[in-house]
Amino acid sequence: MRNVKVAGIGLLKVKEYWDRSIQDLFAETSLKAIKDAGVESIDKVYVSNMSAALMQDQLNTAALMSDAIGMPGISASRVEAGSASGGVAFHEAVQAVASGYSDTVLVTGVEKMSDILPDVVTTALAMAEEQEYTAYTGVTKTGIAAMIHRLYLDRYAEASEVCMMAVKSHEHAVGCKHAQYPFKMSIERAMSSPMEANPIHMMECAGIGDGAAAIVLVPADNAGVEVAGSAIATDYTSIAQRLDPMAMDAIRKAADRAYKMAGITAKKVDLAEVHDDFTINGVLGVEGLGLAKDGEGAKLVSTEEVDKAGKIPINTFGGLKARGNPLGATGIYQVAEVALQLRGDAGDHQVEGAKYGVAQNSGGMASICAVNVLRRAKK
Amino acid sequence: MRNVKVAGIGLLKVKEYWDRSIQDLFAETSLKAIKDAGVESIDKVYVSNMSAALMQDQLNTAALMSDAIGMPGISASRVEAGSASGGVAFHEAVQAVASGYSDTVLVTGVEKMSDILPDVVTTALAMAEEQEYTAYTGVTKTGIAAMIHRLYLDRYAEASEVCMMAVKSHEHAVGCKHAQYPFKMSIERAMSSPMEANPIHMMECAGIGDGAAAIVLVPADNAGVEVAGSAIATDYTSIAQRLDPMAMDAIRKAADRAYKMAGITAKKVDLAEVHDDFTINGVLGVEGLGLAKDGEGAKLVSTEEVDKAGKIPINTFGGLKARGNPLGATGIYQVAEVALQLRGDAGDHQVEGAKYGVAQNSGGMASICAVNVLRRAKK
Repeated sequence: MRNVKVAGIGLLKVKEYWDRSIQDLFAETSLKAIKDAGVESIDKVYVSNMSAALMQDQLNTAALMSDAIGMPGISASRVEAGSASGGVAFHEAVQAVASGYSDTVLVTGVEKMSDILPDVVTTALAMAEEQEYTAYTGVTKTGIAAMIHRLYLDRYAEASEVCMMAVKSHEHAVGCKHAQYPFKMSIERAMSSPMEANPIHMMECAGIGDGAAAIVLVPADNAGVEVAGSAIATDYTSIAQRLDPMAMDAIRKAADRAYKMAGITAKKVDLAEVHDDFTINGVLGVEGLGLAKDGEGAKLVSTEEVDKAGKIPINTFGGLKARGNPLGATGIYQVAEVALQLRGDAGDHQVEGAKYGVAQNSGGMASICAVNVLRRAKK
Repeated sequence: MRNVKVAGIGLLKVKEYWDRSIQDLFAETSLKAIKDAGVESIDKVYVSNMSAALMQDQLNTAALMSDAIGMPGISASRVEAGSASGGVAFHEAVQAVASGYSDTVLVTGVEKMSDILPDVVTTALAMAEEQEYTAYTGVTKTGIAAMIHRLYLDRYAEASEVCMMAVKSHEHAVGCKHAQYPFKMSIERAMSSPMEANPIHMMECAGIGDGAAAIVLVPADNAGVEVAGSAIATDYTSIAQRLDPMAMDAIRKAADRAYKMAGITAKKVDLAEVHDDFTINGVLGVEGLGLAKDGEGAKLVSTEEVDKAGKIPINTFGGLKARGNPLGATGIYQVAEVALQLRGDAGDHQVEGAKYGVAQNSGGMASICAVNVLRRAKK
């Protein structure tokens, strides 16, 4: 197996792009990553997109986007795994280089969510749950998250501690050029926002936005930022089937596999991007990655330990809550942000001396999870 | 790069399954392939599906299907490339084993099309075309194929010669247990059927059906059926952008790459499965694979040379037209059928002495194409 490195990164500010097509967002970001990598050609493009079928009536985006970047002819593939599409697509792209099938691979996540009705977003998220027994009942993804959130409050924490996940993400987003909401939000503001689904306040949910993020992968050469470990795991689709609805086995299994491949344990992780589409999911992401013991995630994210100078910086550019959550692009933003940190290009967000960074990206209620571990090469 | 072999095959008869869920079709077929392979566990499952988002309101099928086969926890990914989803997913699954990331990979294609209104199928097919300039005009996939078909008739062939693509596919499907339409169809019947889009008769179009096909891949061991070459190529999404709308560059490029990887030329190919969703596409598939010169594909498929005892047997189980075309499953059926031939399990359809077989699977109007070449191992 060949080792793989991140050669280039392209990020688009998450916002509402009313005047631009999904191809346009994809192309600008991809060409930025290709330029950053300084490569002359691309062998293959992986398109990560969750819901263009609903939002743009568009399937077959692998061909469409190869065309959009002016490279019809190249190999292409589209990967979808709900909101874990990005992390899963990154894993597939790593395999393409690792196997030797491709030498230069572009993986770009894109989602354009503004120019459809908000209820379509709710529908899309519900489509990542099993339809016949779960979504059919009318429960939304927020509703499912609320049940788990309630359980967490019963067992472990104060509501305000869980809510700090969002407050910290907003704090970290300040000054981030590609963040949708680069401003602070007080705990009072969040805790007094309307309930989306009790006990989840509106300001504990990631918003709707358009975005695209791209990474170019090439074989590793002992310099730059390498892929140290990459893994995907699944779980029962419905939380009703799980022994403990809060266990989040897919996150744990994917993390275990990725750490094992990287030859590390959670203790070696220097910074993390977790999937905080809801505050509770961010907290359970922190625990699932082994960065806090079970039940202690909310307490951890309430402290300065998760800031850039802390023991384990988390969501250093604002996470899903404040950087934004353009579904199929989210997982690529996460990996790209970890890579920016490890190569020392994180600007005001820079975590000093980090060697290992991890990105955790979930789909459905973590019925699928991709965990990607990056490492700063020795040279 | 590790070599990869086909260890197990599972095929479901293509028909209307009104009483069964998409998970059910997926699971039955997958477990059949796992049993056929005689493996004890699966590391990863690739789900090939084109349009469950439209037809079952279902995304995140990678997690859903891992659960459906009783293996929540394993790694999983869903691939979509329009009607080329199967061929592209097979390619990705090969990479998973070739890279060393996985030792035992299941790749299953599934599509359930009966229990939705037929116009949704037309919509789904149009969604594989570019939306803003092509599908927006109201043209259907059949309409686009009709323009190319007309051009072919103007340049090269009689309508009845192109139509023979469908007649031959039906002839080859007779006795095929997994075929939707295992019966003969006369050229007179086909040529007198109503026009779908002039000059395409109804009996020149693949129909609507439910189906699932599965393959288990493991590292090669110089026995059985190996993956000799596997490649994907893209083209301008809209035929209006192509220098020659009949050129089908994606098919040619994918074939060239796959042959090169296999170390062969088209002359070494002993049998082929081509993407005959419309007769014209089957003919252009034959030409794109280099099995006939440009303009001579229709003449070739009008002869006994494409029968099982002929020089180059094509669509030996009935192709998309007669075996059936459950979109995301189709590409897996094709590869599985080639594998059945090469391992000598094709029964009444057996082509004697074949060493190399090729499967060609297109998405959109061949804006993406996967070509997979299988080889009978020496032992």
